Amino acid sequence: NSQLKLFSLNSNNPLAQEIAQEMGVELGKSSVKHFSDGEIQISIEESIRGCDVFIVQSTSAPVNEHLMELLIMVDACKRASARTVNVVMPYYGYARQDRKAKAREPITAKLVANLLETAGATRVIVLDLHAPQIQGFFDILIDHLMAVPLLSDYFKTKNIPEDEIVIVSPDHGGVTRARKMAERLKAPIAIIDKRRPKPNVAEVMNIVGNVDGKVAILIDDIIDTAGTITIGADALRAAGAKEVYACCSHPVLSGPAIERINNSAIKELVITNTIQLSEDKQSPKIKELSVAKLMADAIVRVYENKSVSTLFD
Amino acid sequence: NSQLKLFSLNSNNPLAQEIAQEMGVELGKSSVKHFSDGEIQISIEESIRGCDVFIVQSTSAPVNEHLMELLIMVDACKRASARTVNVVMPYYGYARQDRKAKAREPITAKLVANLLETAGATRVIVLDLHAPQIQGFFDILIDHLMAVPLLSDYFKTKNIPEDEIVIVSPDHGGVTRARKMAERLKAPIAIIDKRRPKPNVAEVMNIVGNVDGKVAILIDDIIDTAGTITIGADALRAAGAKEVYACCSHPVLSGPAIERINNSAIKELVITNTIQLSEDKQSPKIKELSVAKLMADAIVRVYENKSVSTLFD
Ligand SMILES: Nc1ncnc2c1ncn2[C@@H]1O[C@H](COP(=O)(O)O)[C@@H](O)[C@H]1O
Ligand SMILES: Nc1ncnc2c1ncn2[C@@H]1O[C@H](COP(=O)(O)O)[C@@H](O)[C@H]1O
Repeated sequence: NSQLKLFSLNSNNPLAQEIAQEMGVELGKSSVKHFSDGEIQISIEESIRGCDVFIVQSTSAPVNEHLMELLIMVDACKRASARTVNVVMPYYGYARQDRKAKAREPITAKLVANLLETAGATRVIVLDLHAPQIQGFFDILIDHLMAVPLLSDYFKTKNIPEDEIVIVSPDHGGVTRARKMAERLKAPIAIIDKRRPKPNVAEVMNIVGNVDGKVAILIDDIIDTAGTITIGADALRAAGAKEVYACCSHPVLSGPAIERINNSAIKELVITNTIQLSEDKQSPKIKELSVAKLMADAIVRVYENKSVSTLFD
Repeated sequence: NSQLKLFSLNSNNPLAQEIAQEMGVELGKSSVKHFSDGEIQISIEESIRGCDVFIVQSTSAPVNEHLMELLIMVDACKRASARTVNVVMPYYGYARQDRKAKAREPITAKLVANLLETAGATRVIVLDLHAPQIQGFFDILIDHLMAVPLLSDYFKTKNIPEDEIVIVSPDHGGVTRARKMAERLKAPIAIIDKRRPKPNVAEVMNIVGNVDGKVAILIDDIIDTAGTITIGADALRAAGAKEVYACCSHPVLSGPAIERINNSAIKELVITNTIQLSEDKQSPKIKELSVAKLMADAIVRVYENKSVSTLFD
């Protein structure tokens, strides 16, 4: 049987370390440096000939730097005669550019898929893609994990009475995700319905479903500038929710996000570590859960050629 | 006949402007911005359906940012039904990673070629690739321009007596380039031969050819940290050269380069504008020549389906 080798790049080394620990393996030796002019210099410092290589890298900010690191590492692995080159992307950057919203726009999520294949990736493991359709952008195998079980299990530990909980989707696109969580918590769902009555008039927030007197749990895949989620929290409080929690898979948290969250009606924001939070993004309101075990299990199952989907759906 | 459209990205807008002026066209309208999380957002703001599009972008520092801009723009052009998508790269980044120098290294120059093709580039125009073999990394057509005529013509204006000039290659890899310049200036060549007598002993500079009492012109393709070229200049002076000029196609000039040049025996460093010099890289010793006319002529000839090589060789 061929050997498994797990490598980390620079976007999320703590997560990669944790995954290695869960799997009981050491991270492979490699060096990712920069030449004086900023070009990435990668070298793999142990033999990977005939091995099944797994590379852990989130294409979080700085996204272009992290994506190029990944492509160059895949190229190096391919040329070093790896048997398979499996790309483990806890966070898949550019996922929101998944269609032409206007004429003459790129579809960067598809471009990234093509670039990974061109570099030599043979399989991809991702978690909560912004749109599940992105799976179809790949001609190679892709495994799609979900954070909903992890997030749901955390909320179970809070022992909120089942009939008090309502799971809220911040928009119509997120209803499937909210329903998955609602099933696990045996709770109903509600949807925040944004509507612009006339052009250049502020949006109206309308809540579809009953939240009065309830503990509302907002769930989204990505929280970026946190505008949607904090305004949603206000609307839920205005509609009578007694407490508002929020949770997401991918804490992008750019720009004013942390400030907005700190000043919001959100009691606690539950995130995962698919994206490494920088020092300046810490907040007492944030609770981080680890996807390390989830990713480790997926890696082992892919390596052993077992089904990943049955494990995590 | 299909229409020509010229676009600029962010790496070298002044050069793109100059090329447009030489061609008597306006730059196409496009917008390259960043979302809050740093992802590149491109949109093309005029129709390019059925057009021959030329995109001017050097993959200079920050190289990964500039490369991704280019790939995303190519994707957008392809999806906007451009007839051809021609990538004009005055400077081709990652060109020095053109072979496996050690085991388990990537060949990033080849990866970049593949990424450009995957994104949808149909033709590439470059200038002085670090190694001409990189042309073979492309399956699409590639036109390879040279700065030697431009650099030579500039030195002719100095009216240095022909029998006083010697053209110097800073290493064995650059001899062909030095010889091309020497032919144009009707001068002999010399070569700086670096040799390490024993491991961990400083390199010895040996000059092959006569430089005593001469005006030496060092020529290289890329000047990066300027170590080679400034040490070479010292060696030439020590060997009796009465003046030392240096010139290159691509002024990468990273790290200590400017300081080294300012403190060196180099009288004047002649560069081209394939890479835009940032504010902090100005020096009274630097003379910049423009490749705008060269690039403009090449674009027009490609567009008119005429031979580019006969024009510039
Ligand atoms: N990195 C990004 N940050 C913010 N908005 C984005 C980003 N990438 C794409 N978008 C926009 O987000 C929208 C898609 O998001 P959605 O409607 O939630 O699928 C499109 O209008 C995109 O232009
Ligand atoms: N951006 C860079 N800066 C400095 N050295 C580099 C860079 N890219 C590649 N190299 C190294 O330069 C050498 C190739 O240069 P050369 O021998 O002149 O073709 C190889 O040893 C590379 O590892």
